[in-house]
Amino acid sequence: MDVKLKRPLNELGAVEIAEKIAAGEATCEAVVRDCLARIAARDNVVKAWVNFDPEIALAQARVLDRGPRRGPLHGVPIGLKDTIDTFDMPTEMGSPIYRGHRPKADAACVALLRRAGAIILGKTATCEFAGSEPPQTTNPHNAAHTPGGSSSGSAAAVADHMVPAALGTQTGGSVLRPASFCGVFGYKPTYNTINKAGTWPAADSIDTIGWLTRSIDDMEMLTSVLRMQTPTAPVQLSAPPRIGVWRTDLWDTAQDESKAAVEQAAKALGKAGANVRDFELPAAFTGLHVIARSTVAFYERAACMAFAWDRHRDRLSAQMRRYIENGHKISRDEYVAGMKKLDECRVLLGPVFEQFDVLLVPCVPGEAPHGLGATGDPKLQAIWTALHTPSMTLPTHRGPNNLPVGIQLVGQRYEDDHLFACARWIWDAIGNEEMVGVRP
Amino acid sequence: MDVKLKRPLNELGAVEIAEKIAAGEATCEAVVRDCLARIAARDNVVKAWVNFDPEIALAQARVLDRGPRRGPLHGVPIGLKDTIDTFDMPTEMGSPIYRGHRPKADAACVALLRRAGAIILGKTATCEFAGSEPPQTTNPHNAAHTPGGSSSGSAAAVADHMVPAALGTQTGGSVLRPASFCGVFGYKPTYNTINKAGTWPAADSIDTIGWLTRSIDDMEMLTSVLRMQTPTAPVQLSAPPRIGVWRTDLWDTAQDESKAAVEQAAKALGKAGANVRDFELPAAFTGLHVIARSTVAFYERAACMAFAWDRHRDRLSAQMRRYIENGHKISRDEYVAGMKKLDECRVLLGPVFEQFDVLLVPCVPGEAPHGLGATGDPKLQAIWTALHTPSMTLPTHRGPNNLPVGIQLVGQRYEDDHLFACARWIWDAIGNEEMVGVRP
Repeated sequence: MDVKLKRPLNELGAVEIAEKIAAGEATCEAVVRDCLARIAARDNVVKAWVNFDPEIALAQARVLDRGPRRGPLHGVPIGLKDTIDTFDMPTEMGSPIYRGHRPKADAACVALLRRAGAIILGKTATCEFAGSEPPQTTNPHNAAHTPGGSSSGSAAAVADHMVPAALGTQTGGSVLRPASFCGVFGYKPTYNTINKAGTWPAADSIDTIGWLTRSIDDMEMLTSVLRMQTPTAPVQLSAPPRIGVWRTDLWDTAQDESKAAVEQAAKALGKAGANVRDFELPAAFTGLHVIARSTVAFYERAACMAFAWDRHRDRLSAQMRRYIENGHKISRDEYVAGMKKLDECRVLLGPVFEQFDVLLVPCVPGEAPHGLGATGDPKLQAIWTALHTPSMTLPTHRGPNNLPVGIQLVGQRYEDDHLFACARWIWDAIGNEEMVGVRP
Repeated sequence: MDVKLKRPLNELGAVEIAEKIAAGEATCEAVVRDCLARIAARDNVVKAWVNFDPEIALAQARVLDRGPRRGPLHGVPIGLKDTIDTFDMPTEMGSPIYRGHRPKADAACVALLRRAGAIILGKTATCEFAGSEPPQTTNPHNAAHTPGGSSSGSAAAVADHMVPAALGTQTGGSVLRPASFCGVFGYKPTYNTINKAGTWPAADSIDTIGWLTRSIDDMEMLTSVLRMQTPTAPVQLSAPPRIGVWRTDLWDTAQDESKAAVEQAAKALGKAGANVRDFELPAAFTGLHVIARSTVAFYERAACMAFAWDRHRDRLSAQMRRYIENGHKISRDEYVAGMKKLDECRVLLGPVFEQFDVLLVPCVPGEAPHGLGATGDPKLQAIWTALHTPSMTLPTHRGPNNLPVGIQLVGQRYEDDHLFACARWIWDAIGNEEMVGVRP
């Protein structure tokens, strides 16, 4: 007897679910029911979901079960950060200002997922307006620790096997940090290559939609759908990758477990046949996280929050009010200088990829911090968000408290496919399925 | 007796209105009443306004008249393209799909205008979803001709003295073309430097908010407000500008009046003391309008219209359906190649501004075409939108039917202030107030 058949459907990945449904071995409704059962069992602790209505999820599943196969995600349940518009569920931005808010339309990414047959299982908890004020979500590995943010619920729900995949958004490190903290795969595409219509803007010049999964296969499947591509077989590297290791100007601020993850990965990948070399970026890259996080993000945040600031200030968190006040203190000249500096560094980074296929860099300062009052430090992820490069975290390591610590891979702008091929090679070399998510 | 005092208030510019109100020479309500009177007299022909409620406009004016001076636009009425969200008026995107749609919040730009004391007079007619299917708006100079689009109503309303300033958005040439056709000033800032939260996206990687006015003073005032800056005295050039004239690869497709505008301006500016020189851009720039208009714009349009396409296709115009179908035919590889090409050209363009302060290029193929079925050709504006440069049109010339033909000025990315200083010098040298808008 095939033991796999007895696994609850919520433990399968997106590709596996779609295959099972296509083969007639499961119904969409059965898949949703298993996800709902997991949520019912665990969400009192994990608190990943908001604006969650089992009946809306089941209704979508029944429609799909009655109709022909809609696309490559037919019957696959997906979670959406609650800053992403849905026409059939509230979208509340993690803020009382948007309590009960019903958008007119789905965000572009949501419409594309549904077109491919995905079931929107529900909305996942987010920091207020994709910022820093945390939701109640806990880390599924240890409820006393933050899951990271701002895509907190998306990371926790995927890690906890409540849903095989979820969307988030990243302005600093809001996809890769929670993915790293929760032990799942997180991917932020090249800036401006995945449509973000209908998602809440935090800082539009760097905001990017990203997604979280428990496998690279699933990551690639979602990528195809959101690019409006027909999924194809994964591209394999024809030779081991040339991997450049940059410890960044923040290396000394990282904890031992994060340094160890990079060093151990570099060594193991070299042993596996990759050409691994250290490199340094020029002085222009020093302090880039300050421009990304403070100058550009605060200034743009202050602009896009103008309505909320003027009309609903008392319903903003103290944290958000500080962000906006900081933004108001940044002069136009400082902001423009920051934008120019980022542009300059994007151009400077180009030639690095003549030497390397992929960069291996630290992803997070360390394990998910204890406590739920903050979601951790975005600096190490924010550098790459601001550089508009594609970036990915793989759940490769653990820290002293046995909490996940991911490594971060960075590709060349627009060469996301090559990043995927490198990530697949790297995961095959040093990955371990046991490290992905929580043990269900 | 000062004759100026007898001019109806709707004929004044934004800065003049703000000064008059600050001096106690007019009330906000009186300003709005004069604008409303002009609209009542003319909008049956011009058809610039949609979602227009005089009572909402007057109510804003009365609130301002009762309170302290709010900011530099205190009492200045402004029109908004109806793809820009307002919490107190419908926002219908020029589409029956959005009939009666009430956004939850003001767009960031609207909140910033209100913060400065502006009165949102109403929403102006737009092509469907800021695309090409025209609204009923006519050219105020000759109702048998198009006003251009997609910011059709914004251009017509400003040219017709219904409002001193209006916002539009530009993805191809949706601000500068209607500005040129209607004989007003139009400005598109450097990409991603003015917050576009709450505006309908057409192609997010090139979409930019822009504004239309009847003077450079007013243009600069709006610019300060939308940048969250305190307005300062205009910067004057310390020496005559170095002006580079590029006729573009589309020169042979332009009509005589557009060529004549560029040639005459170049000659007159040389006589006025500017250093005017022809230059050529490398082959990489040939056909850039195709990448801008077809590859990138169609692909991104198809993505951001996914919900409307899947759920409301029968309520899209045939034109919009064609756009989306075209977008679906563009492969991911073509799109990414287009994005990379644009990036490459943005970098190549940089050094040109070591030689020149500003570029003088054709703005439109010619006068506004006859008929209301189409809004004219965006190619000449679209090159610069896609290059992310700031661009501006000045109402300097007329064509064979005595309709306006603007010139286009292009500045370096992020150097919008220098573009303003150059435009001011150029307007002082060759501009003529009689050419601005219609004679009221």
